[in-house]
Formats: sequence, C-alpha cells, structure tokens
Amino acid sequence: MINLEKNISLGKMAVLLVVVTGEAEAAMQKQGKEFGYTLCKGKVGSMDSAKIFAAVETAAKKEGLVDQRYREEHALYHSVLEAYNGMCRGQDGLGTILRSAGLLFSIVRGNKLPGNTSDGEWIAVALYGNMGAPIKGYEHEVLGLGMNPI
Amino acid sequence: MINLEKNISLGKMAVLLVVVTGEAEAAMQKQGKEFGYTLCKGKVGSMDSAKIFAAVETAAKKEGLVDQRYREEHALYHSVLEAYNGMCRGQDGLGTILRSAGLLFSIVRGNKLPGNTSDGEWIAVALYGNMGAPIKGYEHEVLGLGMNPI
Amino acid sequence: MINLEKNISLGKMAVLLVVVTGEAEAAMQKQGKEFGYTLCKGKVGSMDSAKIFAAVETAAKKEGLVDQRYREEHALYHSVLEAYNGMCRGQDGLGTILRSAGLLFSIVRGNKLPGNTSDGEWIAVALYGNMGAPIKGYEHEVLGLGMNPI
Amino acid sequence: MINLEKNISLGKMAVLLVVVTGEAEAAMQKQGKEFGYTLCKGKVGSMDSAKIFAAVETAAKKEGLVDQRYREEHALYHSVLEAYNGMCRGQDGLGTILRSAGLLFSIVRGNKLPGNTSDGEWIAVALYGNMGAPIKGYEHEVLGLGMNPI
Amino acid sequence: MINLEKNISLGKMAVLLVVVTGEAEAAMQKQGKEFGYTLCKGKVGSMDSAKIFAAVETAAKKEGLVDQRYREEHALYHSVLEAYNGMCRGQDGLGTILRSAGLLFSIVRGNKLPGNTSDGEWIAVALYGNMGAPIKGYEHEVLGLGMNPI
Amino acid sequence: MINLEKNISLGKMAVLLVVVTGEAEAAMQKQGKEFGYTLCKGKVGSMDSAKIFAAVETAAKKEGLVDQRYREEHALYHSVLEAYNGMCRGQDGLGTILRSAGLLFSIVRGNKLPGNTSDGEWIAVALYGNMGAPIKGYEHEVLGLGMNPI
Ligand SMILES: [Mg+2]
Ligand SMILES: [Mg+2]
Ligand SMILES: [Mg+2]
Ligand SMILES: [Mg+2]
Ligand SMILES: [Mg+2]
Ligand SMILES: [Mg+2]
Repeated sequence: MINLEKNISLGKMAVLLVVVTGEAEAAMQKQGKEFGYTLCKGKVGSMDSAKIFAAVETAAKKEGLVDQRYREEHALYHSVLEAYNGMCRGQDGLGTILRSAGLLFSIVRGNKLPGNTSDGEWIAVALYGNMGAPIKGYEHEVLGLGMNPI
Repeated sequence: MINLEKNISLGKMAVLLVVVTGEAEAAMQKQGKEFGYTLCKGKVGSMDSAKIFAAVETAAKKEGLVDQRYREEHALYHSVLEAYNGMCRGQDGLGTILRSAGLLFSIVRGNKLPGNTSDGEWIAVALYGNMGAPIKGYEHEVLGLGMNPI
Repeated sequence: MINLEKNISLGKMAVLLVVVTGEAEAAMQKQGKEFGYTLCKGKVGSMDSAKIFAAVETAAKKEGLVDQRYREEHALYHSVLEAYNGMCRGQDGLGTILRSAGLLFSIVRGNKLPGNTSDGEWIAVALYGNMGAPIKGYEHEVLGLGMNPI
Repeated sequence: MINLEKNISLGKMAVLLVVVTGEAEAAMQKQGKEFGYTLCKGKVGSMDSAKIFAAVETAAKKEGLVDQRYREEHALYHSVLEAYNGMCRGQDGLGTILRSAGLLFSIVRGNKLPGNTSDGEWIAVALYGNMGAPIKGYEHEVLGLGMNPI
Repeated sequence: MINLEKNISLGKMAVLLVVVTGEAEAAMQKQGKEFGYTLCKGKVGSMDSAKIFAAVETAAKKEGLVDQRYREEHALYHSVLEAYNGMCRGQDGLGTILRSAGLLFSIVRGNKLPGNTSDGEWIAVALYGNMGAPIKGYEHEVLGLGMNPI
Repeated sequence: MINLEKNISLGKMAVLLVVVTGEAEAAMQKQGKEFGYTLCKGKVGSMDSAKIFAAVETAAKKEGLVDQRYREEHALYHSVLEAYNGMCRGQDGLGTILRSAGLLFSIVRGNKLPGNTSDGEWIAVALYGNMGAPIKGYEHEVLGLGMNPI
C-alpha cells in the first residue's frame, strides 16, 4: 500500500493516477482533489498517433482542464507531445513503424507542489499502457510524462 | 494508499518503485520480491548524461541483476537508453543543452507478469526526478521507462 | 523600412522574401534579380507533410530553378527537408501529431554572397507561416531554412 | 526597403530583427517598441552548444524580458531549444559533430499580433548566422525560430 | 573476388548477403549455412514504411528465423527498426517526406562470431537499395544494419 | 568469393571496401580504380564523435578526394554526418551515452554507376566496426552509409 499524504507533486500525481486501477484509482482521484488538483483519466488505443492527441485534448476540454485561449491549448498540446515522445523513447511513430499502442492517460492541473502557488499553475499529461506489434500479447509496457506551465 | 496485490506488472513495478519513498518504498521492495522480481533502487544527479548510464549499470552489476555476458549488458544498456530518451522527450542531451537532472532510478528483472514464465525474463529501468536549468528550483519532474528481454 | 542594398546573402534573401508581403515582396523580388539571384515564392497549407515537399519541388521545376539532373533535384530535396525539419523544431510530423501548417515558401538560387562565384551556386529554401491545432487561431509562427550547393 | 507598418507579428519581428543590421536594425528596434514589444539583440559564437543557451538566457534576464519565476525561464528555455533545434535542422549538435556556429540572436516579448491582448504574452527567440566546419569560410547560413506563451 | 573464409561475423554476413547478387549470393548463402548461420533474403519496395517492417517480419517467420515467443519477435522488430533508422540517416520517414525506397533485405541468426557460443545467439537485419523521389532514376543507395541478442 | 565485375555502384563499392580486409581489400581497391573511382580507407576509434568526422575529413583531403572549395567539403561533411547517423540508428551520440566505437571508414568518389557520367560525380562515405560499452568484448557491429553529389 502506498501512502501518498506526503511527498506528492504534480508529475507524481499524474504518474500514479495513470498506473493504478479500481479502488486505488478512486482514492487517488479523491486525494488529488484534496490537494487542489484538477484531474481526469481516460483510455485510448490506436495505430494512428493523432488519435492519442485527439483523445487527450477532447477529455481536457470536456473536463474543463483548459480554457478557450490558445495559450492553454498550446500548453496542453506540448505536454501531450512530450508524453508521446517519452513513450516512443526516441523513435517516434506508431502505425508508420508497424506498432500499436493501447493506453490509459491522465491529465492533472495545479501547482508543481500542492499549495506552493508562487510559480503558478502547470499541466501534466501521462500516457501508460502497452505498445507492440498489432498481434495480441506481442507488446510491452511504456510510459511517457510531459508537463508545462499553463 | 495503493494496494498492489493485483494488477502488478514489470513496468508498473519499476515505475512505482522509482516514485515512492520511505515506508512505501520498503513495502514495494518487499512486495516485488514476493512476486519473484529482483530489484534495486539508486540515485544519480548530473549535467553529464554518461553518468546516468554509469550509475545504473554499476548498480545493476553490484546487485546481481545482470550476469557477465554481453547480451545481458546489452539488454540493460538499451533499457537505460530508452528510459533516458523517454525522460528527454524527443530532445536528447543534458549539459549540451544547458540543463541538469537530479534523478532516482529503479531496475527490475523478472517476468512481464508475475509467474507468467512463457515469455522468459525481461529487464525494466525507470528514471524519475527533476530536470531543468542548473539553478535551484528551476526544474520540473520527468520520468522515463525502458524495457527489453534478457 | 529595411534597405537591403548592403549585406545581402543567399539565406537572408530567402528569409526576407518569405516573410514580406505586398509592395515589399515585389521590391525584394526585383532586388534579388539585380543581385543575380533566381527566385520564386509560393503558398501551401496542409496536415500532410508530403504536400509541402511536392509544392516546393513543383514550383522550383516550373520556374526553372533546377534542371533535369537528379543531383539538382537532390540538392533541392535536401534543402526542403532541412527547412521542414527546422520548422518542426526537433519533433517532425504534421497530421501524425495532430497539427497543421499554413505556409509560404521561397526558393532562391545563386552565390552564397552576390557576385562571389568562387564557391559556385547554392540553393536555399525557406518555409514560413503558422502551425498549430487544426482549429482557426490555435496556431503560432514557424520558420525553417535549408540550403545546399547545386 | 521593407515597410513593416502593416502585417507585423511576434515571430516576424524576431526574424527581421535578427537578420537586419545597422540603421535598419535601429529602425526595427524602434518600430518594435512602438508596437508594444520588449526586445533585445545579441551575439554568440561557439562549438559548445550550451554557450548559445547561456548567452540568450543571460541577455533576456539582463534586459528584463523574463521575471524571476521558473515558469518564465521555462518559456524562454523552450523557445531557445526550439530555435536551436530549428537551426540544427534535425541533426542536433555543434562540436560533437565537428561544426561551429557564429550567431546573432533576437528575443521579443509581447502579443502574437500587436495590440491583440486576448491570448496574452508570448516570447520568441530567433538565432541566425553561419554554421560549418571550424575553418574560415567553410560555413553557410542557418536560422531557427522558437516561441511559447509566457 | 572476396574470400569470406576468414574474418566473417554476423553483421558482415548480413551486409554482404544483402549487397551481392546472382552466383555470389548463392555462394554466400551456402557459406553462411556452413558457418552455422540461419539466413534468408527478400525484396520490398514502398513509400509506406510499415510495409518494410511487415515484409521482413513475414519472411523471418516463414523461414523459421524466430519462434512464437514475443521476446524473439521483439529482438527482430528492434533490429528492423535499427536498420530502418540507419537507412533513413537521422530523418525518419518515406512517403511522409515524399520519398520512396526500393530495397533488398537480409536476416541472419547465429553467434556474433561463428562458433563462439559463449554470448548466445543474435539476430541481424540489413536493408539495402535505393531511396529517393518517386520518379525513376531520382534516387541513390542507402544501407541500414540492426542487430540484437535473441 | 564475390565477383564484383558486374553490378558495382558507388555505394556498394564503399560498403564492400569498408567490410573486407587483407587481399580482398587490395583487390577491391584495384577494381574500384579500374571502374574510375577515387577511393581510400582508414581507421578511427573513439568515444568522442568529433574524432570520427576529423579522421574522415583529414583522409579525404590528404588523398585528394575533395578540392579546396567549401561546396566539396560540404558534400563530404554531410556524407559523414549521414553515415554517422546511420551507424547510430536513431539515437545519436557516443561518449555522451556511454558508448564507444572502433571503426574502419571508406570514402569513394565517382559516378553513381561506373561510366554513367550524365549525373556527374558523387561522394560516398561508409563507417563500419563495433560499438558498445567501453569494456572489451561488450560491443556489436554497426554500419552507416552516406552519399551526396559533389
Ligand atoms: Mg520543460
Ligand atoms: Mg521494445
Ligand atoms: Mg549544410
Ligand atoms: Mg508550440
Ligand atoms: Mg545495440
Ligand atoms: Mg540524399
């Protein structure tokens, strides 16, 4: 069991939220809100990398994690791009290099450390799941994390 | 609190081990061993990216996570390289692009899913910490994960 | 007002031609020809990166900026590729990472410095415009420049 | 002569400021300020890429283009990184791949379009100069542009 | 004439097999088998990079160069990916950047040096052919080599 | 034994010259000259990637493979850069990512196909050897090929 009451931070929150499931996920959502974070979690699977960007952006807008200004969308977009690059580990592409990804994603908005408002709000995006050949079981875990001021 | 008894996997083990601290870290180490994983955790900070590779390789050898054959060192090396690329998010380099990283790392060896021996052993490396300008507090969290069969 | 009579060079010519509009553009075209440069300017917008390459190559052939030999097409192609990479800033792709570009391009052929024939002819390609989400106004400026001997 | 009174924008301002010299540069600085932009220009040459980052960051701080918060330094850093990547055209590195750069840089802060305050302030960095072998005259022009909300 | 009886190795075997044709290719296949290598050669041409991956993976499975376990497919996949990256020389993509490739490929499995079993089996993939504009004759040679323990 | 009298081409010549040794190498040099190629072969080993560029450029100049004009040095440099990128397979760097390379290199200048003068002269650079940890035997073969019109 992991007790998160101490040492939580924006990136760690995004990473833990994306990897845990079931009751732990519900507890994490609750705890995140208590720390002042706005957050959401979703699911996307595809060989078309653009669908990953679309899924995260759509969820962020629907859940009110970004407002209508381009500067907010830009911060979100670059965070997804960084998480995507992180998950691809230096060799970008899904279908173009014959691989597929089945992913969960988390988006968290708030201070880098809970309550530390001096550096304003940031947004973090984490992608976690399996990547591999488009054949069942021919895949291994991947994780990417991106974050930017918003 | 996160209960890991269900749904654990090699990559998730590496990610959770690298982000948690204190009692939770000790519990994670214990639980990992019960699942049949060999694992270790360490610390490295530098503007010289080669030191990150050296720190993880040295720890892996000292803790007996790889044997003397090059094929094992190769699996470890490529896992560190993938984790490093993941953490750099598409733009490799530390000191060469005037940034520094203060990191924790975890190394985990075992089956992709505990007890599922049909696909043999794999090795996972996770890097987690802060990256930024070489000025205190001018940094944000990063995380990279790499894994390969061993 | 910028007086270009001094300090002009091949790359600067391509960059200035691609960013200015209206009367300034006409003046720039005229001045470039007086300096012995062959040049043209065009427009392309797409989420499909191949269309950018096609638009520049088609214009260059139509305007007689390259001859029929592959070595000329190769110099042009690599100049477009460099300009494209420059505009993408380390993370290549348009539609594959859910972004779109609305661009102007310029192509200039001649000596690196007007009248300095000792190093022969070079070709420069500049791409300038806006890149961003496929939503009106959700975009910012980008510029890429590539050049090779021809 | 280029008349900038119409069609100016943040990125174009940075690009024009970095390429023009002498009286045109002074006119550009003046015009930029009238449009509400904060801007500066400097010079750096090196085979050590970190020195380019240091030179731009130092100038930005000295000229008051960024405040003390990390979120501002982060926006500046990523803009330099994008400009650097743009100038390197997909193959990063200077001394590590035996090439050198002699550069001018410009930094401009303000609205994407002058007076259009709805999307807040952005920062643009342009790098322009010559890159090539560390032998006099063995070099050609390069240009990179990066920009982020601040 | 090249006498291969001395100094052969896994990577060299893959490179020589992919570049030679006719009788020399038949001799190379024979000699490779005598050294204990399992090997095959095939052909693929496309603007769609995924087809290159598919052609090599299909041939490897059909010829029995990999077994049913994911760890073997993973070693093969990463070898193709390395060969593909090598052939693209730092700027990945075919049709997305308006270029096409007409290729031969070789796959070789065995010890890094014939008879040296202490480091187990490795798999090497070589891609060789022409890459260029989708216009006949507008192309030049490329070669990529990737290898991993299996 | 490989008979090269048929099917030779510039890139294949560079690749064969770099992989063969002893008598076969001498025969290859002789045959290459008969086909009208200018060529040379050398050796370089380092963790410092710049030394690879320096070794190839020095040999090319000493052997008269390029003249004094920058356009020739530029064609050579980009060919080395492409070969280096090819050998690094998408993840550039040697010492910065704690790996070393012991290499042979070949440089060949001439028509893409012997006697086919319509597309002028090109230059090809091949790098071949072993790359790995800076520990004896912890390495595997790599090969990179680059070519450009000259
Ligand atoms: Mg950042
Ligand atoms: Mg993998
Ligand atoms: Mg160049
Ligand atoms: Mg942007
Ligand atoms: Mg390797
Ligand atoms: Mg080429």
